[in-house]
Amino acid sequence: MRVPPAGLRSAPVDLDLLFLGTAGSAPTASRGTSATLVRRGGDRLLVDCGEGTQRQLLRSDAGLSDLEDVLLTHLHADHVLGLPGMLKTFALRGRELPIVVYGPRGTRGLLQALGVVIGRLTYELRVVELSAGDTVERDGYRLVPFAVKHAGAALGYAIRERERPGRFDVAAAAALGVPDGPARGALQRGEDVTLADGRTVGPAEVLGAARRGRTIVLTGDTAPSATVVEAASGADVLVHEATFLAEERARARETDHSTAAEAALVAREAGVALLALTHVSARYAGSEVEEEARHLFPDTVVPRDFDIIEVPLPERGPPELVPRGGRRGRTQDVGSGA
Amino acid sequence: MRVPPAGLRSAPVDLDLLFLGTAGSAPTASRGTSATLVRRGGDRLLVDCGEGTQRQLLRSDAGLSDLEDVLLTHLHADHVLGLPGMLKTFALRGRELPIVVYGPRGTRGLLQALGVVIGRLTYELRVVELSAGDTVERDGYRLVPFAVKHAGAALGYAIRERERPGRFDVAAAAALGVPDGPARGALQRGEDVTLADGRTVGPAEVLGAARRGRTIVLTGDTAPSATVVEAASGADVLVHEATFLAEERARARETDHSTAAEAALVAREAGVALLALTHVSARYAGSEVEEEARHLFPDTVVPRDFDIIEVPLPERGPPELVPRGGRRGRTQDVGSGA
Repeated sequence: MRVPPAGLRSAPVDLDLLFLGTAGSAPTASRGTSATLVRRGGDRLLVDCGEGTQRQLLRSDAGLSDLEDVLLTHLHADHVLGLPGMLKTFALRGRELPIVVYGPRGTRGLLQALGVVIGRLTYELRVVELSAGDTVERDGYRLVPFAVKHAGAALGYAIRERERPGRFDVAAAAALGVPDGPARGALQRGEDVTLADGRTVGPAEVLGAARRGRTIVLTGDTAPSATVVEAASGADVLVHEATFLAEERARARETDHSTAAEAALVAREAGVALLALTHVSARYAGSEVEEEARHLFPDTVVPRDFDIIEVPLPERGPPELVPRGGRRGRTQDVGSGA
Repeated sequence: MRVPPAGLRSAPVDLDLLFLGTAGSAPTASRGTSATLVRRGGDRLLVDCGEGTQRQLLRSDAGLSDLEDVLLTHLHADHVLGLPGMLKTFALRGRELPIVVYGPRGTRGLLQALGVVIGRLTYELRVVELSAGDTVERDGYRLVPFAVKHAGAALGYAIRERERPGRFDVAAAAALGVPDGPARGALQRGEDVTLADGRTVGPAEVLGAARRGRTIVLTGDTAPSATVVEAASGADVLVHEATFLAEERARARETDHSTAAEAALVAREAGVALLALTHVSARYAGSEVEEEARHLFPDTVVPRDFDIIEVPLPERGPPELVPRGGRRGRTQDVGSGA
């Protein structure tokens, strides 16, 4: 492996998903309703906010305080009922940092209706309604909502990192007479440099091909859909709902949900590195969901609450499930047994 | 102890409180927001329903299914935000049994506003708005709402069992010639009986003085109040809020809450058997709240979530805290540690 010169090698940005609520429609003793936290560098994107999410955050290593962005996939109760309590708790803490809630058409109306229990806030609450085709530019990545098949205006979200510059070829730079230091940094940032002898060296002479960034795609609730295949094409992680098993395919069709097998076929068609199934029905433990999907797509996991998926840069290895990786350290009460 | 004759001794009705949410205002990792389940015989009264209550019920030995009555003390978010999700879950289960929500003035309007997320139900949802002075008659006891000092129309609830007949004096019955069997049962139920020889025997001749039933009083949020002292006079258990310690008395006054010391003084003045403090601020672990109150009222406990208080008939002993007594048996995930 070619290694960028010391001082030019930027630390990789950490990226992971923390599963805070993996139950479908209603909670169970072990699974909360929908909520997934995407953490990239210092950014925290909470995708859906089912009842109890604020407490799940408190029980995780993420905590509550630095959350600034919430993305709603759709407005069904099991995806939004944690929002009023969380917003209220922020106000009780005297929060001043604004919070942005992204969601499909109708999000503003929902928050207005919930105002009766939310009350007055100490910070600005911004609502941004999105549609398929919109893009939200962020530092180092973009949020790309896409249409899914569920409840009218429901959205999935792709989180797409920008391309990274190609590898820096130290030998080539040396051969061209580019000295160590600022000149090499400038080349790596994509700038031309003029050497002491008047020659100009361009980035293409010392950098390999641009390297792809990482992509995480979360569907929210959806029937199997070509729009998901398209959005998830080549993604590192696809978080797809799997409310039913194949034996209940008819029910999945009626309710615009997916079976585990259908989600696996979507993942296979999209060629993702890892499929994570969520929105697990209270009727299932999770293992049967995983088993069904793995027949069709072996790289499938069914995270439990507080599991995380680490997503390293592609050249550093595949995404990996870390069971209970996001659980907060043992406290006086949590996890103290029956 | 005089024992009623075999066949006349009715099984005592079990009475306990299951603490499902003991946090004040916002949840913590170890405490959910306000919810207490009073269980008497087959009756289940859920007093307040903070966010996450349905899941706390699922994690307890009570479960969700047989709940028919919810009592709201007031309409602040941390006491009601669990209601829409729970009502929705009942509908997902196809529930047909009606549910009654009792609460102060404004309860109907709140439920209408939350209708946007609750959606269509499969069962009847009845709302009964109560005021101090009302009484709800139940089988064997009555619900008596009383005014507290918090948020306008806020209520506390007293659950008062009816008096029980006095003890049956077997020796007196024998001396009077009352035979074993139906005649003794009739006397114990308060009826006159005519013996084979034509004599009439009345209940007063074989029964001791009527025995008091049990009383449980729950305040919800309140500043210390004479109305609470009155309602809790001689109660077996007073569940009183204690949001603050004495050092924050000024803040308690501003916000219409109580300090632990104030709650202890209310309990002392009312002469209750046991004081249980709830609505514990996230700043406190609970032990310091207990310590402050015990200086003034030694029979104080600060239950944690899933603790229960058993309330035996007065002649069988005092109410008793059973730590984690209401926790559901160990499941695959709950309580499995960090």
